[in-house]
Amino acid sequence: MANPTAAMLVIGDEILSGRTRDANMNYLAKELTKHGVDLREARVVSDDAAAIERAVRELSTTYDHVFTSGGIGPTHDDITADCIARAFDTPIDVRDDARALLEEHYRRTGLELNAARLRMARIPDGAKLIENPVSTAPGFTIENVHVMAGVPAVFEAMVASVLPTITGGAPLLSQSLRVNRGEGDIASLLTDLAGDFPDLSIGCYPFQKDGIFGANIVVRGRDGARVDAAVTRLSRDLEQ
Amino acid sequence: MANPTAAMLVIGDEILSGRTRDANMNYLAKELTKHGVDLREARVVSDDAAAIERAVRELSTTYDHVFTSGGIGPTHDDITADCIARAFDTPIDVRDDARALLEEHYRRTGLELNAARLRMARIPDGAKLIENPVSTAPGFTIENVHVMAGVPAVFEAMVASVLPTITGGAPLLSQSLRVNRGEGDIASLLTDLAGDFPDLSIGCYPFQKDGIFGANIVVRGRDGARVDAAVTRLSRDLEQ
Repeated sequence: MANPTAAMLVIGDEILSGRTRDANMNYLAKELTKHGVDLREARVVSDDAAAIERAVRELSTTYDHVFTSGGIGPTHDDITADCIARAFDTPIDVRDDARALLEEHYRRTGLELNAARLRMARIPDGAKLIENPVSTAPGFTIENVHVMAGVPAVFEAMVASVLPTITGGAPLLSQSLRVNRGEGDIASLLTDLAGDFPDLSIGCYPFQKDGIFGANIVVRGRDGARVDAAVTRLSRDLEQ
Repeated sequence: MANPTAAMLVIGDEILSGRTRDANMNYLAKELTKHGVDLREARVVSDDAAAIERAVRELSTTYDHVFTSGGIGPTHDDITADCIARAFDTPIDVRDDARALLEEHYRRTGLELNAARLRMARIPDGAKLIENPVSTAPGFTIENVHVMAGVPAVFEAMVASVLPTITGGAPLLSQSLRVNRGEGDIASLLTDLAGDFPDLSIGCYPFQKDGIFGANIVVRGRDGARVDAAVTRLSRDLEQ
């Protein structure tokens, strides 16, 4: 059976202006690969309501799961939750279960649960909360969209909360070989290999370091014996 | 006048599997910001012909410029050039000007210009070559799409070749303030500030370090005097 598919949606002007380097995409990609979920697409959009809504609609109808990152804090530029609610034509307001979590947290820390912080309890009707062991304010899952924070420590904790609730498939296995030869030297050999192992994905990733052109060849698949066989054949071909 | 808009399209299974961390998006974002081009969206798709074609069509009709990264090397998984040609219904074949560049390069380096390497001279009809001072094999611009390599050193060199050919607008200016207070404490103050400076973008980016919750507040705009005024007002508000 094919693995479930997924897309990621990163929300934030700071990524698109270059001020911040996104770290969540790579983290999620690795976790999904381990869990047997195929990440097929990732998008970054700005803090723009129309752009967020459009992306959520498109991605949630195209893929089995959508994971979002960013825009669920207490400030005026945190508009993700409201945009997600609109994308699903669902009402949104401060919800009692989320408010109770925040009340308990701010009572413990001695900070005021003011109007701004209360915005973090705005949860669309019918959504299921995602636990946030780092800073309490929850994420949520609505339909097939998992809405999470942008701060990497919080994002990672939320991914850990969500993944066990998702049915994964066979993890993608991979083996790689590093070759100190230009891609052009090994390309025809790789074309033949890909033809003989149509069930595997064979990627060639060139690098250039200290004036040397080389490549990492990565063989990926669900069947470990087939990956082994392809890598063995590749090693032999490369020695000739 | 509004700045020109842009999107980036990163092509590569290795990013979506988590094997490789994309570095080109952040580089391009910074360069475009300096050049006065607004990067509005970024997408990552896999080495899948239908996905690449669809993304190129969508992005090139939505934004003034599209910058792609990846998939223009000599191996079987390098399918970007052919996908771009199909997206524009344009014929593609080995082109004499690109072939001449490669012939000269491989004569100099003593390597064979074999069939695989010659694939890097496949250029759509009517496209303009993008110079590659690092490893010769050119990128190309067709319509409003700039097709570049994925290897960061080559990508960066190609961006440097392309940017001077693009008319930019006013560069986005920004100033930031680091605050060792939680976002929730300063949110209402930022809402007021954003209301009074509707021509500026005011972002709040929380961080968590050594148990301290703080935030970087970034004020962005095209008019330096207005950015100054907003930051002065913000500093004053924060002291109260």
